[in-house]
Amino acid sequence: MVNYPDGRKSNSIKNNENKTSFSNRGLNFENEINQSNEFYRLNNRAIIYKKPTPIKVVKMTNYPGGKHCIEEAYFQTASTTDYNGIYRGKYIDFEAKETRLKKSFPLANIHQHQLEHMFKVIEHGGIGFMLVSFKLLEKSFLLDYSYVKEIYNQKLSSIPLKIFEEKGHEIPTSYLVPIDYLEVVDKIYFK
Amino acid sequence: MVNYPDGRKSNSIKNNENKTSFSNRGLNFENEINQSNEFYRLNNRAIIYKKPTPIKVVKMTNYPGGKHCIEEAYFQTASTTDYNGIYRGKYIDFEAKETRLKKSFPLANIHQHQLEHMFKVIEHGGIGFMLVSFKLLEKSFLLDYSYVKEIYNQKLSSIPLKIFEEKGHEIPTSYLVPIDYLEVVDKIYFK
Repeated sequence: MVNYPDGRKSNSIKNNENKTSFSNRGLNFENEINQSNEFYRLNNRAIIYKKPTPIKVVKMTNYPGGKHCIEEAYFQTASTTDYNGIYRGKYIDFEAKETRLKKSFPLANIHQHQLEHMFKVIEHGGIGFMLVSFKLLEKSFLLDYSYVKEIYNQKLSSIPLKIFEEKGHEIPTSYLVPIDYLEVVDKIYFK
Repeated sequence: MVNYPDGRKSNSIKNNENKTSFSNRGLNFENEINQSNEFYRLNNRAIIYKKPTPIKVVKMTNYPGGKHCIEEAYFQTASTTDYNGIYRGKYIDFEAKETRLKKSFPLANIHQHQLEHMFKVIEHGGIGFMLVSFKLLEKSFLLDYSYVKEIYNQKLSSIPLKIFEEKGHEIPTSYLVPIDYLEVVDKIYFK
């Protein structure tokens, strides 16, 4: 069991017999996206990576031969969204989150400076969106940052599921590409 | 201004507009670039960040209240270059290195998968370049990844200074923007 900085816990045991065959293979959402990105890279379709989690190193020992062992360190809050890269010549940027709620996604799950980063990305002409996995609904959606901004400007505390259904797009899944978000990106941004 | 036999110039007198005046304030190259990026962001000119160094966490203790203390961890080799982001609507990607050599920059300073990442970036239509600081010359250059690729394809082990001078561009410096590489980017990629 791994505890992530944002309080998420990895799912070490997952034997559900659920119908969505691909979202329950023991991978969490982040792993599924990483696997999808790897597939995209291997096929030279897009160059997109998750950024490493920033860690503040407090104490370190240097061993002979140049090896450094970190002995005290803490997770830091990221300044930006988690994923970025290039696709079809365009800058692409997104954040990915899971929720166990069924009717909405709380904006409190995203840090203020991450929201500001999102709004900057679209202002500068990048492709930017959130991927949100509604675990219990077994659905994940892509929602353009502009809709996140609308919700934020309306001072709403969460994004209703209805917005994801109406303004966003459900993300298809397959064995090799568990979160095939570029299929949606093609439809929205390159049609 | 004093000229030393090794070509170094003293910068003890600094009341002229000499371009070397800002590169000796005790900041290393990475800090200078981070400061420049911060200036660009504050002025809403570009959204470019250094990626965090990837760290493999081996042992961690979780304290009540959700605080995690990392007690054993190691630095990992990055899969990508250090910096990326968006500028004038385009994906931008670069690697920054310092050298104390005076006549060339050894390619061994860049990991194989970082080189491959560079070549992918230009293949996908991004703006990609290296920033190399020749410490002892008090000069830094921007060199497009395509020239790095040429050198690599020729199986040369280092990039001669001459290539930086002829194919690259020297980067101007100022107090607020110690490594003002976007000035060069404007000239090369947006003229």
